Amino acid sequence: MSETSLSASPASLSPLRLLLLGYGHVAQTFLPLLASRSEWLASELGIRAIISGIGTRSQGYYIHPNGIDATLLARETDPKRSFIKQANRVDTAEIFIVAGKTAGASLLLELTTLNPQDGQPALTHIHSALSSGMDVVTANKGPVAFALADLQALARQHHVQFRFESTVMDGLPLFNLTQFNLQAVGMRSFRALLNTTSSLVLSLIEQGYSLEEGIRQAQKLGVAEADPWYDLDGWDAVMKTTILANTLLGGQLTPQMVEREGIRNLSLDAIHASARAGTPIRLVSQAHKIHRQVIAEVRPRPISQEDILHVGKGTTSVISLETEAMGTITLVEHEPVVIQTAYGVLSDLITVLQRRQQVT
Amino acid sequence: MSETSLSASPASLSPLRLLLLGYGHVAQTFLPLLASRSEWLASELGIRAIISGIGTRSQGYYIHPNGIDATLLARETDPKRSFIKQANRVDTAEIFIVAGKTAGASLLLELTTLNPQDGQPALTHIHSALSSGMDVVTANKGPVAFALADLQALARQHHVQFRFESTVMDGLPLFNLTQFNLQAVGMRSFRALLNTTSSLVLSLIEQGYSLEEGIRQAQKLGVAEADPWYDLDGWDAVMKTTILANTLLGGQLTPQMVEREGIRNLSLDAIHASARAGTPIRLVSQAHKIHRQVIAEVRPRPISQEDILHVGKGTTSVISLETEAMGTITLVEHEPVVIQTAYGVLSDLITVLQRRQQVT
Repeated sequence: MSETSLSASPASLSPLRLLLLGYGHVAQTFLPLLASRSEWLASELGIRAIISGIGTRSQGYYIHPNGIDATLLARETDPKRSFIKQANRVDTAEIFIVAGKTAGASLLLELTTLNPQDGQPALTHIHSALSSGMDVVTANKGPVAFALADLQALARQHHVQFRFESTVMDGLPLFNLTQFNLQAVGMRSFRALLNTTSSLVLSLIEQGYSLEEGIRQAQKLGVAEADPWYDLDGWDAVMKTTILANTLLGGQLTPQMVEREGIRNLSLDAIHASARAGTPIRLVSQAHKIHRQVIAEVRPRPISQEDILHVGKGTTSVISLETEAMGTITLVEHEPVVIQTAYGVLSDLITVLQRRQQVT
Repeated sequence: MSETSLSASPASLSPLRLLLLGYGHVAQTFLPLLASRSEWLASELGIRAIISGIGTRSQGYYIHPNGIDATLLARETDPKRSFIKQANRVDTAEIFIVAGKTAGASLLLELTTLNPQDGQPALTHIHSALSSGMDVVTANKGPVAFALADLQALARQHHVQFRFESTVMDGLPLFNLTQFNLQAVGMRSFRALLNTTSSLVLSLIEQGYSLEEGIRQAQKLGVAEADPWYDLDGWDAVMKTTILANTLLGGQLTPQMVEREGIRNLSLDAIHASARAGTPIRLVSQAHKIHRQVIAEVRPRPISQEDILHVGKGTTSVISLETEAMGTITLVEHEPVVIQTAYGVLSDLITVLQRRQQVT
């Protein structure tokens, strides 16, 4: 199972050694997706992905000195357990990153779960990895919402990359689009439905469920979390809105600066009446630039039939960008599941590699 | 008016000398847009745009040996006339390209109008420019629909770039998106409303206009051409569908291989009945990949309320991409006007410059 045993890979491929921090749904979906793209990565980028470390807070941090080929690892029934068996345990996430770097890892995939209070400990992980000269890809909104400018400055200082495409609308390439393809377009404002749990729960209430039943049903469908209130009180949307306001509109907001109102205090009557009138209520994120100031909010609003946000049915996410040179552009992600988030991570990984190759 | 007279520009900026071939709506909108972004181009890319040549078939081909600063030229009431006064006339488009290259131009903007039969003479212009070592940006669908693979091969051979973002959905970065940001996503198929004239005429018929009145109204609104049948018979959609099928799905189609049915033979009764039933008829482009074959068609179809293409009201364009790793993604361009096309040209110009800087 060591990397040298993969006779199928031409020797000419460069190893890309990865550290996986966090091993929840996204990481578990990412690993087979990465493996399924091994031929593409070999032919297009000349690389072969190797997992050098897997760490989780509950089960510990493990480094394999040679690393294990990602394709072979993904074939295991339980890749993490298989990895752990062959690897060395280290004590903390900090040591994990240092030891991983020593073992040749050049890219940290930070896929731990969100702490909406302050983005920790992911923020410290990312800080350590960037400082040690590793590129970082994260799917974790916390560090990006709380410390984007700092992390970007740190990345520049160490000549490494920090990417976070999957934090908003999963792998829909919103940040890459605006960074690489909508340059000088004059972005003015956006409106969006970004939180699938609240959209789904509101839809279910409109169909006759009570709030509690709607939440239970959304949990059964795997959309709502065990504690749904982070979503329903608007915090998830606030995190995403902060990230978008800062990247798309050049704001310098923290999550606390986004006006927030969740759907907790909406009455069933109000939800039903608005839906019957053809203007269902949804949790709308919006931000706009006035002079150099960016103002952002998350709030339940009735959505008219003529409003493009009306397409956001069920768990569909939608964002409408108002620009100077391209008028209004809308992007819709239809009923995403976890593979979309995993694809966002893969897409960031590809971008990191291509930019490395451009620089050298 | 020579380039040396622009004392405001720091000497450190690199001149970017451009040839403009074609001087219709797009070029006339592009020039002030380019001028409005001069600070951005200076600060982000370190360049200053200079027009070295303007050529049109009806009024001749003109080269200025030093070139005229694009910002200064855009301030003139009639930039083309002003340019012509100071420039030297040459006999043909071929000589224009050679003389422009000699005068230091490194980028041809091919903005002539479409010849739907064979893409000429734009195809020859682009061929000459690429062969002489110039990058080319075009807004002309013909050459891309008829000869994309050849032109891309030619560009590779001469280590230059060929870009055509504005040929489909104007400056909405469809090609850049899929080339740079949706890599390895596994694109399977697309469905789209791409022809604004037929959408608008059908909308007007639904509102009670006759076909002739609808066409006249669409012409008044500046959407339909003097000869509307290229649009209404589906040829414009076929060109765009060919380009998308070949770029997004890796097809090798020519426009003749796309099944085509326009809206000419639809009865008013059928249009009204379908609209009354809540499924208005629109000209739908679609293509999908079976094994390695790509099959594409353009055809009027009823659009149900649940169909995302239903958002394509008035002149709004919409495309829905079905992918393996990102599910379905939809992009909407709301009621575009000519500045969107001009932005597509600017966006291509920026991409060309950034990739030049990455290579060197």
